[in-house]
Amino acid sequence: MRQEHIDQINTAVAAVAAKEVINHFYFVACGGSQAFMMPAQYTFDREISIPASIYSSNEFVHRAPKALGPDSVVITCSHSGNTPETVKATEVAREKGALTIALSHLEDSPLWNAAEYPIHYDWGKEADASDLNKAVLYYLMFSILNAVSPCEKYEKGIASVANLNDAIEKAKTQYADTVKEWGSKYKREQMIYTMGSGACYGEAYSFAICLLMEMQWIHSHAIHSGEYFHGPFEVTDFDVPFIIIEGIGATRPLDERAYNFCQKYSDKIMLVDADTFDMTGIDEEVREYFAPLLAGAVLRSLADAFAYERGHDLSVRRYMWRMEY
Amino acid sequence: MRQEHIDQINTAVAAVAAKEVINHFYFVACGGSQAFMMPAQYTFDREISIPASIYSSNEFVHRAPKALGPDSVVITCSHSGNTPETVKATEVAREKGALTIALSHLEDSPLWNAAEYPIHYDWGKEADASDLNKAVLYYLMFSILNAVSPCEKYEKGIASVANLNDAIEKAKTQYADTVKEWGSKYKREQMIYTMGSGACYGEAYSFAICLLMEMQWIHSHAIHSGEYFHGPFEVTDFDVPFIIIEGIGATRPLDERAYNFCQKYSDKIMLVDADTFDMTGIDEEVREYFAPLLAGAVLRSLADAFAYERGHDLSVRRYMWRMEY
Repeated sequence: MRQEHIDQINTAVAAVAAKEVINHFYFVACGGSQAFMMPAQYTFDREISIPASIYSSNEFVHRAPKALGPDSVVITCSHSGNTPETVKATEVAREKGALTIALSHLEDSPLWNAAEYPIHYDWGKEADASDLNKAVLYYLMFSILNAVSPCEKYEKGIASVANLNDAIEKAKTQYADTVKEWGSKYKREQMIYTMGSGACYGEAYSFAICLLMEMQWIHSHAIHSGEYFHGPFEVTDFDVPFIIIEGIGATRPLDERAYNFCQKYSDKIMLVDADTFDMTGIDEEVREYFAPLLAGAVLRSLADAFAYERGHDLSVRRYMWRMEY
Repeated sequence: MRQEHIDQINTAVAAVAAKEVINHFYFVACGGSQAFMMPAQYTFDREISIPASIYSSNEFVHRAPKALGPDSVVITCSHSGNTPETVKATEVAREKGALTIALSHLEDSPLWNAAEYPIHYDWGKEADASDLNKAVLYYLMFSILNAVSPCEKYEKGIASVANLNDAIEKAKTQYADTVKEWGSKYKREQMIYTMGSGACYGEAYSFAICLLMEMQWIHSHAIHSGEYFHGPFEVTDFDVPFIIIEGIGATRPLDERAYNFCQKYSDKIMLVDADTFDMTGIDEEVREYFAPLLAGAVLRSLADAFAYERGHDLSVRRYMWRMEY
């Protein structure tokens, strides 16, 4: 990771460490950026007793959680740094005295200037993976955990970030043929469900709302693997496609159960099984938390396959960026 | 409300009030029962500084939030009292020393026996509305708020429960013709999105996963009104149907914005606008929180209309209760 990024993270973390009391961690962002932070909320929930919540930015602004105040830490993210709801959420949090940390690709953007502690990440194919958004978030996440509850596990988490790129590349290579096959086989589907839980739910959500709905105009819904049996499973039929992520760690039994049922009644299952990933370089104690990053990379390749097969480039929009809304 | 219910609620609330410290309120249930408690989590979030979270039961059990312990209050719900994941969640919480409160229609059910403080609610057409699940939950909710942070507003919330039935009946009557028309007009749709935010998001979620997916086998997805603009809105087209709930209070601007955009590009909008409800008897200060109960009742009528028009009774299942899963 570039020293500039490490410095920005360390400055933010030092400010978190200096707080006498932290009453709440809030992760706040929109759409894909919200999904991107969901595993962080999950990790905090499992690892420390300080409450951690995640909100869509505008819900956060208008709901105005009562606990938000000088003892709070608010972490926001917007790739462009221009998402108005996320800028507003950061401003509101800062006005209330909260410590504000913002992740963005764009320096000197409105979000960058709204937050007390902005952190930059690189983007694009020329960037080193250890400086991309997910690496920077995980470095920040484990550094905060290590600040509020120092332990070797979190140091292992920080160290594992350096090996994330290798693990991601291996996962993509492993699934390359499969993903190409799915892209062709399911390219005419007009509705595809995704499913996941725990650390991986965010990837299921992100793939549904950003890759399928936004970038391919395919109807979708991210079903929580545990909720599946309490309503959604009744739509399962031989011709209803599901993309299922089986994570590793705590909530894997939920995903396995959903997959085991679903594959009996649907002939169209795309299973991304994190237990088959080669995670060499990612410490065993933190693999549960890194699994979604690998599953997400595989799914991104699937989106590329859909885009190619359907002749519908991932960059095409009919509303976003094209009009006022 | 029947004295038996009031007594059970008061016993639970006295136990909550007797706790020296409360570190976290957890609302835990599956599917429709989870959706049913979402407005309570929202209300706690807005009203008090003690953190409140909501989980699907099996996610709660396996995620095992670190903060769960003797200082926690866990409120679970299962209509039948037999939902295994919710029974397990209650047992896990109780083993960890948390104060456990469970809502159920079935006394002496596994859930009833798992919780330290079980609370019964009535069910069925012969029951008085002030003893049904939502009335009992709201009486409990405002009583807990009043115990941890006494104020007149929460007493008004408790008092308003008695007038809930009248308000619901008026909302249903107001929408009766509209709902009948929608049932006929949209009966052949195979995919219907729902949308909401804040206190009303739970009703959008519940209608999507229980009424449409489970009980009508219609594909669906509950889109959060704020998230709509960050991905999902790209699927909007003239022939894509949306059921939109415009709530009242804090997050209404999110719903209005989503409706204003969506109605420009879709010709198939079903709008339930809580601002048009006659809420006489519900105190103005707490109307925001009661609005979802009225919207939910209108949507339930819509489900009845769909069931009638489609010849698909709401009680039909192909998997649920019919096999092991």
